[in-house]
Amino acid sequence: MEFLYKNSALVAQERISMSAELLKQVIGNLRQATFAKDYSNPESFINLPQDENILKSITAIKEKKNKPNLKYIFVAGIGGANLGAKAVYDALFGYFDNFYPQRLPKMIFLDTINPKVSASMSGFIEQNISSADEILVCIVSKSGETIETIANLQEVSQILEKKFGDIKERVIVVTKEGTRLWQISKEKGIDTLTLPETVVDRYSVFSAVGLTPLSFLPFDTGQFLDGAKGVVDSCLSDNPEQNPAMLSAIIISEHYKTGKSINDNFFFHPELESLGKWYRQLMAESLGEEKRIEGRLEKVGITPTVSIGSMDLHSMAQLYLAGPQNQITTFVYAKDTGVSPQISNSALFANLSPDVSGETPEHIVSAMYRSIKTSYIERGIPFMEVVLPDLSAHSLGSFMQFKMIEMIYLGALLGVYVFDQPNVEEYKQKAKEMLAKK
Amino acid sequence: MEFLYKNSALVAQERISMSAELLKQVIGNLRQATFAKDYSNPESFINLPQDENILKSITAIKEKKNKPNLKYIFVAGIGGANLGAKAVYDALFGYFDNFYPQRLPKMIFLDTINPKVSASMSGFIEQNISSADEILVCIVSKSGETIETIANLQEVSQILEKKFGDIKERVIVVTKEGTRLWQISKEKGIDTLTLPETVVDRYSVFSAVGLTPLSFLPFDTGQFLDGAKGVVDSCLSDNPEQNPAMLSAIIISEHYKTGKSINDNFFFHPELESLGKWYRQLMAESLGEEKRIEGRLEKVGITPTVSIGSMDLHSMAQLYLAGPQNQITTFVYAKDTGVSPQISNSALFANLSPDVSGETPEHIVSAMYRSIKTSYIERGIPFMEVVLPDLSAHSLGSFMQFKMIEMIYLGALLGVYVFDQPNVEEYKQKAKEMLAKK
Repeated sequence: MEFLYKNSALVAQERISMSAELLKQVIGNLRQATFAKDYSNPESFINLPQDENILKSITAIKEKKNKPNLKYIFVAGIGGANLGAKAVYDALFGYFDNFYPQRLPKMIFLDTINPKVSASMSGFIEQNISSADEILVCIVSKSGETIETIANLQEVSQILEKKFGDIKERVIVVTKEGTRLWQISKEKGIDTLTLPETVVDRYSVFSAVGLTPLSFLPFDTGQFLDGAKGVVDSCLSDNPEQNPAMLSAIIISEHYKTGKSINDNFFFHPELESLGKWYRQLMAESLGEEKRIEGRLEKVGITPTVSIGSMDLHSMAQLYLAGPQNQITTFVYAKDTGVSPQISNSALFANLSPDVSGETPEHIVSAMYRSIKTSYIERGIPFMEVVLPDLSAHSLGSFMQFKMIEMIYLGALLGVYVFDQPNVEEYKQKAKEMLAKK
Repeated sequence: MEFLYKNSALVAQERISMSAELLKQVIGNLRQATFAKDYSNPESFINLPQDENILKSITAIKEKKNKPNLKYIFVAGIGGANLGAKAVYDALFGYFDNFYPQRLPKMIFLDTINPKVSASMSGFIEQNISSADEILVCIVSKSGETIETIANLQEVSQILEKKFGDIKERVIVVTKEGTRLWQISKEKGIDTLTLPETVVDRYSVFSAVGLTPLSFLPFDTGQFLDGAKGVVDSCLSDNPEQNPAMLSAIIISEHYKTGKSINDNFFFHPELESLGKWYRQLMAESLGEEKRIEGRLEKVGITPTVSIGSMDLHSMAQLYLAGPQNQITTFVYAKDTGVSPQISNSALFANLSPDVSGETPEHIVSAMYRSIKTSYIERGIPFMEVVLPDLSAHSLGSFMQFKMIEMIYLGALLGVYVFDQPNVEEYKQKAKEMLAKK
């Protein structure tokens, strides 16, 4: 993973050095907090990829549950409980599922509650699943009390029970120890994995939360974790030139201070859109905060947006180029997609222009990418670049760990505690009360 | 369609009246511009739903091309050329495709160029398509020169030709008269539909651009157009209380003037996410503009964002509730989803809490929707509501026409010409040159 910003991020080198000085203490604390490897604080999420116990328990469950005829993995979870797994699934498989209708298993994410999905579930199972071995239901909820997740879980389980009787063997629960969901799972003998109490769910992709559903795919979990491990040293370096997480945080925060309140994450690979949505939650929920400073209420937060190349060149580019430029952009681009088909002209449209015959899709995308960067530079619109070597599990692991560590620095620079979300908890309570009243 | 804003939009009634006064002239011009029904100006898109010639030519093409064994409709188009059709497809079919693997035909959108999609195309066609009647290729490009669209078109056509020989009968071209694409199509005898020269593609969903691919689905084109026709009178009224398009534009522009530079479109139905992306292009490309006022360069534009309930309550809500509140929100909610399954507890998780047994998904979603609105009101976060009666083709038609007319008023209030996109054209030129150089 390369992080490029010189001549494009438009932050003075001395501002970077000053902020890096300020962050030295944070880095010191972070090193200490992660050194113990005991999950005694929320920063310990950094240690998850090294934790061999997690991988062992997931491998054991996979060996027990995997079946050669597994067709569908239902993942019931919402927000931090599913966005990490969905980011990886969509990048490697989901975006291409249309083109591989026969490729199995497929993952189906049950996140929100949708009346039409509920209404179709029973017919879907009736027509497409002929043995319990063909499905796996993975419930992910740290609190064990998420309304949508429980509703989806009850619906799917109840339909499956009607058809197959006891489906206990086809269910996996991921929750923290001691929840009501955990207790019931233990009582009923359902396979249950936990995540550490301190790990906040939007930082949990390298725990059982992300790894459990992914492990049932032709997915190299080891490579994913290696990718994450591989960036930790640099992301904990106190030399900003060697620390992409710190650099990115400093650049975003410097622009935020001068009024750029949007961080646009512009992915040049549409299969990374869900990765963008994972980061969107990470940033929005970590940094959105109101606090009282000397009696005055201050409201902090950066709005993360996700743009996708090349589609959004035909949608958002006019605004980005000519509009108020209240965004700091992070371009994400993979050098090598691993395939290089060549375009040939069809007989029917042989003489159409522009002539793309002989081009590779990769070369066209790269030309567009270089063009938009040139436009940004010419107009003085600031950006950074994250260049991934490829779109592998390893690269995804690096990117996600890098971004989670970046968020700690961003929190420090903005004076925000990144591991809580008090106002959304307040809202959730309200929703539960409204539902209880009927 | 109901438009609600009182007590929540937080714009003084006198500000609304003042802006409505300013817009009287615009409305007058608009009525005149659309009265002629001759497509002599870009505002004439408002007449598209009434144009019986469009429907006739689409019905004729459908009768000629539709086959009982049609399985896949490839739509090659990007930006305004495909976002409208995709919004409708995803709302009615696409979002649920996972649950109906056997339901055909399915639509496959070839928008950007993706190396992995290119690499998989040939295998996909080999394995899934056994006769040319099973596919339809619909190319949509107003200019006829969009790089991505041409690349995708050449790729798909060439693979199909290898397998089936001449595929002319299975291709439909939508472009404006006189383009190179149009000429070749005429020469080769390919069925070709045009859109009026003056209609800008992001305003073209009710022309052949949107209707052609959609007409091959079990989709009520007449109802879609009726929905659009049904809102025109009110959206051209000079009484703001009767004109949701004007009200919405005034509210967005009033908040923009006080620093709320984001318009968050918060859909409480995930199947409407693509509708959000359609609106995102409409707003970004119409309003993003730099202009010289008394020698000073002014940069105008509102950043449209798309949020989805209930997922984004677990992702963005913390930011929206506690953050800098630089957004004006438009909630979009459909009263009746047309289905009302009831949730039953499974045997396995019978005693889990919260207990959702006996609830309908619709009731849970509605409780969440009411809760988040209450939180916004309590915190003084401004919003409007668009309440659709249902999620039908009729409702989608109403919403899209309403939003396109809203954009004309927004342009007038912000002093922006909404029918061009000069800077994105500049970028496109750059990309073509870069590609030509190799």
